[in-house]
Amino acid sequence: MEREIDVVVVGGSAAGLTAALTARRHYQDKSILIIRREEQVLIPCGIPYIFGTVESPENNLIPDAILGKNDIELLVDTVVDIDRAAKTLQTKGGETVLYKKLVLSTGSLPVKLPLPGSDQDSVFAVEKSVPYLESMLEEIDKASDLLIIGGGFIGVEFADECKKNRNLNVTIVEMLPHCLQAAFDEDFCKQAESLLDSKDINRITSEKIERFTGDGKVKGAILSSGSEIEADVVIQSVGVKPNIALAKECDLDIGPLGGISVDRSMCTSDPDVFACGDCAEKVSFFTGQPSRLWLASIATTEARVAGANLFGITRAYPGAIGVYSTVIGDTAFATAGLTEKGAKKAGYCSVSGRAASVNRHPGRMPGGAELVLELLFERQTRVLIGGQAMGAKSSGELINAVSACIQQGMTADQIATFQTGTHPALTASPIAYQLVNAAEEAIGAMNE
Amino acid sequence: MEREIDVVVVGGSAAGLTAALTARRHYQDKSILIIRREEQVLIPCGIPYIFGTVESPENNLIPDAILGKNDIELLVDTVVDIDRAAKTLQTKGGETVLYKKLVLSTGSLPVKLPLPGSDQDSVFAVEKSVPYLESMLEEIDKASDLLIIGGGFIGVEFADECKKNRNLNVTIVEMLPHCLQAAFDEDFCKQAESLLDSKDINRITSEKIERFTGDGKVKGAILSSGSEIEADVVIQSVGVKPNIALAKECDLDIGPLGGISVDRSMCTSDPDVFACGDCAEKVSFFTGQPSRLWLASIATTEARVAGANLFGITRAYPGAIGVYSTVIGDTAFATAGLTEKGAKKAGYCSVSGRAASVNRHPGRMPGGAELVLELLFERQTRVLIGGQAMGAKSSGELINAVSACIQQGMTADQIATFQTGTHPALTASPIAYQLVNAAEEAIGAMNE
Repeated sequence: MEREIDVVVVGGSAAGLTAALTARRHYQDKSILIIRREEQVLIPCGIPYIFGTVESPENNLIPDAILGKNDIELLVDTVVDIDRAAKTLQTKGGETVLYKKLVLSTGSLPVKLPLPGSDQDSVFAVEKSVPYLESMLEEIDKASDLLIIGGGFIGVEFADECKKNRNLNVTIVEMLPHCLQAAFDEDFCKQAESLLDSKDINRITSEKIERFTGDGKVKGAILSSGSEIEADVVIQSVGVKPNIALAKECDLDIGPLGGISVDRSMCTSDPDVFACGDCAEKVSFFTGQPSRLWLASIATTEARVAGANLFGITRAYPGAIGVYSTVIGDTAFATAGLTEKGAKKAGYCSVSGRAASVNRHPGRMPGGAELVLELLFERQTRVLIGGQAMGAKSSGELINAVSACIQQGMTADQIATFQTGTHPALTASPIAYQLVNAAEEAIGAMNE
Repeated sequence: MEREIDVVVVGGSAAGLTAALTARRHYQDKSILIIRREEQVLIPCGIPYIFGTVESPENNLIPDAILGKNDIELLVDTVVDIDRAAKTLQTKGGETVLYKKLVLSTGSLPVKLPLPGSDQDSVFAVEKSVPYLESMLEEIDKASDLLIIGGGFIGVEFADECKKNRNLNVTIVEMLPHCLQAAFDEDFCKQAESLLDSKDINRITSEKIERFTGDGKVKGAILSSGSEIEADVVIQSVGVKPNIALAKECDLDIGPLGGISVDRSMCTSDPDVFACGDCAEKVSFFTGQPSRLWLASIATTEARVAGANLFGITRAYPGAIGVYSTVIGDTAFATAGLTEKGAKKAGYCSVSGRAASVNRHPGRMPGGAELVLELLFERQTRVLIGGQAMGAKSSGELINAVSACIQQGMTADQIATFQTGTHPALTASPIAYQLVNAAEEAIGAMNE
């Protein structure tokens, strides 16, 4: 079967779906087709929650109803060949599709450590596949000792969720001195770690795995220090790599970190092919340098740029700020932009300010929880370059106000006099409001 | 007794306290004195919650400890005279204070309707006084029928709180067609009203009070339509007027809406006297016209401008955006900037976009609640001029991201590709995130 389609999107997760929806919004008369391999699409950020709060992969799916509602066709199939000269692609199922514009949103693959013994049963990575996650869930339900390799967001979320309602010994091994260190400065990391401690989650930091033990099924791991830990299930959460097999096969340019090269409009080296999401190479908003930020929220932003630009450039992506959050127990951790350490590495001279307050006023209002915000400014220009929040769950929205301030290049004085709304049952008091007070504190430090 | 002080702040509520704290942050060597009449300072926005959730005025106070910590002196006394030529002021208690810079933050007084029978017992306004509120609480605890005049934020919050844990018949009389109409467009108002209905709070809209009945203590009210309602307690929540007695007495310029005239630096007609908070005249961020927005969050923002500018102008206030929120039951309502109706009145040609989603992903994550966001853009420039949110309590922070976007003049395209962070346990999914999707919807409407 052969068909002609205006916009073909390869991949149907956060980036692909959003690119298709954006294309529909901006080009109402175009035909749009998503081709994806998976029968069912997982909510990527929800995957750790399958192992606790939401209970199964089936409870963590992106419903397909939105496709029909937006007149987007779906083909569950695998693209095996792209002919850019002919503007056609072939699927495993035998279909030939002619496209006018092509969007590659083929996502990423989990990094698997090439260690001795890693090919044994019960050594998992975080594959975005319903059957794979089902088998992982089954193994964890039977396990006594769970080893999680990597103490970033995903590792920490897996640890917290797997510990819930299970009599399970959970250990995180992290090669850096602290968990969550890529996203937070040390005192935030330490708070997160003390929450992990309070949940009896073991942490081994500044350590690597040397090899796995076992007899076909994993039994444990030997650390670089020589010590051994027991494990009947291993989860590797040590990052992802762009899935660029198709892009390479059709000779698109590839970036220095292994993603598909894109310009500010999310266009690849072929003007009729766009790329977005984890498969696309990223640059930092702050430095213009290649960036290792692979996040669903970056994927959807890139997709909103790509989808709108297909038949005429109207949007530009200024590079990744990196806005993300997590929760340990009931405590939220959220970050946007650079950490102090990251700023120094990027050549910034920075100064920070911190404000803490209960997120209600008076503090005895129901739902009151401490919310700490730290803001980071470039000293010379006084422009905001980063923020970290911790505490109340409204941190998840507060960090987006911080992101708006970063993206708009707001200075400390602009933020200190920024017009916010406050309410006894919803936020800190207007006197103590964290966003403006953290900026004031930084101004104090700048003037010293 | 006579003393010399660098910075004297008259008034110690949201504006006065924040002005003093800001002055301390920016001028570490100056002496700072707050003179206020009240022994204890109430959290202004918390006042309705005294009558339900927080139970008493004593539980809704701004603690004075922050003054000592910041080396700010306090004098509980009443200023009776200001001599601007001599730069001195006199207090009722007999003190003479010489100032270098004076900040007036004398607040506002509640409007009392000059109606027949309004001087009877149990006809209250919302006075910011602990003993007054204590007597009001005592009366409400004994009451059977409570009449609330004015269905704005304060009226609605009083109704919701007074109804809690009391067998009380509560009726709101509002002269406009809807409650909360000054802050929200009709469909948001209707949602709020249906929540009031579900709590058995009576509403009489498009009606005014003609007179009160009673024999020295109020017994009820006659409406303009002629009908009568019973009431053994009446609360008037029909707005405030700037408290400018002192400013008038010392001949400072007064603005068209009766507030102390101030420029962008919050300086009055006397270069050594600043004013901020409810007593200061306000202009709209959007129109530059006088504005009737009296909010604690505006007061504190103005105070941060005034306090920093005392000995050299470094900050400007761009006019009031108007960012505020409320809660009915568990449902938050938040607004920033112009409503559709307000935009039309101000001469804007506007276009809106709306997005709704659960504030979790998947929606079954704990704490999931619908969150609806409507954004309003100027059609020609595509710049954001307003936003209204309703639903989950994180609306209280989301509206501050909206405020940042308004204040920075962000366009619909900038917001649609704005970099946000999302998390299963904290926010909507990155695909459905309300802020960017409402902007996309508006773009669709603009392109039609």
